[in-house]
Amino acid sequence: MALIKEVIIEYYRIPLPEIMEDAKHGLHTHFEVPIVKIKTDDGREGVGYTYTGGFGGKAICSLIANELTDILIGKDASCVESIWDKMNWGIHYVARGGLASFAIAACDIALWDLRAKKAGEPLYKLLGGASNRVKCYGGAIDLNFSLEKLLNNNQKYLDMGLKAVKIKLGQKTLAEDVKRVAAVRQLIGPDVTFMVDANMSWSVEKAIKAGREFLKYDILFLEEPTIPEDYAGYARIAEESGMAVAGGENLRTLTEFQHMLQYGHVDFPQPDASNVGGITGWLKVAHLTQAYNVSVSTHGMQELHVSLLAAMPNAGYLEMHSFPIDQYTTRPLVIDKETGMAIAPEVPGIGVTFDWDKLAPHKQDF
Amino acid sequence: MALIKEVIIEYYRIPLPEIMEDAKHGLHTHFEVPIVKIKTDDGREGVGYTYTGGFGGKAICSLIANELTDILIGKDASCVESIWDKMNWGIHYVARGGLASFAIAACDIALWDLRAKKAGEPLYKLLGGASNRVKCYGGAIDLNFSLEKLLNNNQKYLDMGLKAVKIKLGQKTLAEDVKRVAAVRQLIGPDVTFMVDANMSWSVEKAIKAGREFLKYDILFLEEPTIPEDYAGYARIAEESGMAVAGGENLRTLTEFQHMLQYGHVDFPQPDASNVGGITGWLKVAHLTQAYNVSVSTHGMQELHVSLLAAMPNAGYLEMHSFPIDQYTTRPLVIDKETGMAIAPEVPGIGVTFDWDKLAPHKQDF
Ligand SMILES: [Mg+2]
Ligand SMILES: [Mg+2]
Repeated sequence: MALIKEVIIEYYRIPLPEIMEDAKHGLHTHFEVPIVKIKTDDGREGVGYTYTGGFGGKAICSLIANELTDILIGKDASCVESIWDKMNWGIHYVARGGLASFAIAACDIALWDLRAKKAGEPLYKLLGGASNRVKCYGGAIDLNFSLEKLLNNNQKYLDMGLKAVKIKLGQKTLAEDVKRVAAVRQLIGPDVTFMVDANMSWSVEKAIKAGREFLKYDILFLEEPTIPEDYAGYARIAEESGMAVAGGENLRTLTEFQHMLQYGHVDFPQPDASNVGGITGWLKVAHLTQAYNVSVSTHGMQELHVSLLAAMPNAGYLEMHSFPIDQYTTRPLVIDKETGMAIAPEVPGIGVTFDWDKLAPHKQDF
Repeated sequence: MALIKEVIIEYYRIPLPEIMEDAKHGLHTHFEVPIVKIKTDDGREGVGYTYTGGFGGKAICSLIANELTDILIGKDASCVESIWDKMNWGIHYVARGGLASFAIAACDIALWDLRAKKAGEPLYKLLGGASNRVKCYGGAIDLNFSLEKLLNNNQKYLDMGLKAVKIKLGQKTLAEDVKRVAAVRQLIGPDVTFMVDANMSWSVEKAIKAGREFLKYDILFLEEPTIPEDYAGYARIAEESGMAVAGGENLRTLTEFQHMLQYGHVDFPQPDASNVGGITGWLKVAHLTQAYNVSVSTHGMQELHVSLLAAMPNAGYLEMHSFPIDQYTTRPLVIDKETGMAIAPEVPGIGVTFDWDKLAPHKQDF
């Protein structure tokens, strides 16, 4: 039995290589990476983390420092799911999803790192090991890109070997969106998988109209056509447009996914371990997708999700997200150039080892 | 036009007069009160606040200081609902309820204080003014009280003039709960309204069984019989037990209430302005209750809620909660001894003026 004896929290705010835009969150200039190091009394250490689109990270660190640390200290680090439950109920009144799901995630991922290192297993095997690889797409935040730049960026994905790409929607008019979709489909040809993402910016009525327009471009899914609380709206969009619908990056708990599947409609659920309570929370959602007979995909943090998705028998698509957290690790995402699939790391632990020298200039107090 | 020029955040952690227990959160020893002072460039100030059951308050202050302040500064303080929308969407990715609803609440309540002071109106009139008084019950956190102490406490409520009381449920056996319910009903007699609260601790099956047991004690409602995400469970409990159901203190957004009403069942919705996005968020829920043809009640912060509920044509019951925030103001809750109703303050503003000297010893850094 190894007891948790120390929880170290670090906050990093990292500039994006260029300013990027989506339809609902506007311009992105930075992303934040709160990192948690959990040390046990037998001298081991696990490292976990979460990330945000540039805000909220300091409050996440505050919540871990002021509340979750007390819950963690002294617990048997092996009992990950029990600790997860104690974190959730220990701060339930101010938690139940929202910001707390990020804070719990960072701690939970550190516990899984400890567990997988102790087992001497790479994460994808410890979680089931259906495969060591998964389908992957380039997910750009490109709403503000000119058409030329949009095409260049997608060509870059093809040059990397990717067999699937996704672009942002939500231009001033639907006609402009259609023009960009048509141009990208022409560039990538008929054999590359193509997804689109409206980042919650549309009404249900507009999403149905848009979905029908896009049918002829062979789109795999329309992501987040409207706000994720509108379960009935998601069902209408899927049924009345004939377009498959994706979503999940803004759902923060198992029950929010359950409600979306029970009361709404989502063909491609996309839980993100960083904001759905870590690996423990993500696994619960992944198992729920199996109960509902749909695939499971992911949003963001590709350097970790590659191992989670590869493990799943019902793996959908890994998003290679435009927040390049993986560029601040010793193993940026590995793509097999021939198949375009992402390859999970084989080292014991979560397989995400930060490059501390590269991160250092971005560290701030919280 | 008065622009917001400064946002001051203060954190208070206040010990309870005695240790109190409920069935899900366990022992309560403190409550936290994050306070926000918003100053405008014409020299005015509004004061808002939120509260917690003892944890999360520092992260709430961090979120206001690091994220919401930037959104507030420079805005026209009169445009309260627009600012509320900007706060919600400005931090949406880490927000959508949860902890963010507390942070937004504190800021929003300060804006309403500015608005009501500028209008020279007491809040209950500014919000509609259906009445200046509302039915009120004593809401104890008394799960750990001996039977004798439980009865003494309820006698105290009767002595104050209250015509309604609520006790906590969730003893080790249902028989013990029934014994306490029977004893309290015997004490208060047939004419005093009696509610019970299980604080989310039961399974649906147990709640149905318990609800049936309590029918003969003329209970107005069974509060939070199970976790608030189980919409279908709430519907089953109400329908199969024949007992009216209350809930809402753990719902954090308008859509969470909408889902509970649409997919679940709640006879007595109990939104709490401190955790549902302030007065702006609370009003949206109150209007939703009108759409669903049910009354609106409240949880906690009686010193503010008295004005909100009094304003409503469909007012239900004000909870006089056991966190005595009102004892740290210049006007603790006023009960009309004859009718047992709570009386709204007549001063311009939100009518909650903190006693800063009394608060001072409890101030901490966050
Ligand atoms: Mg997306
Ligand atoms: Mg309650």
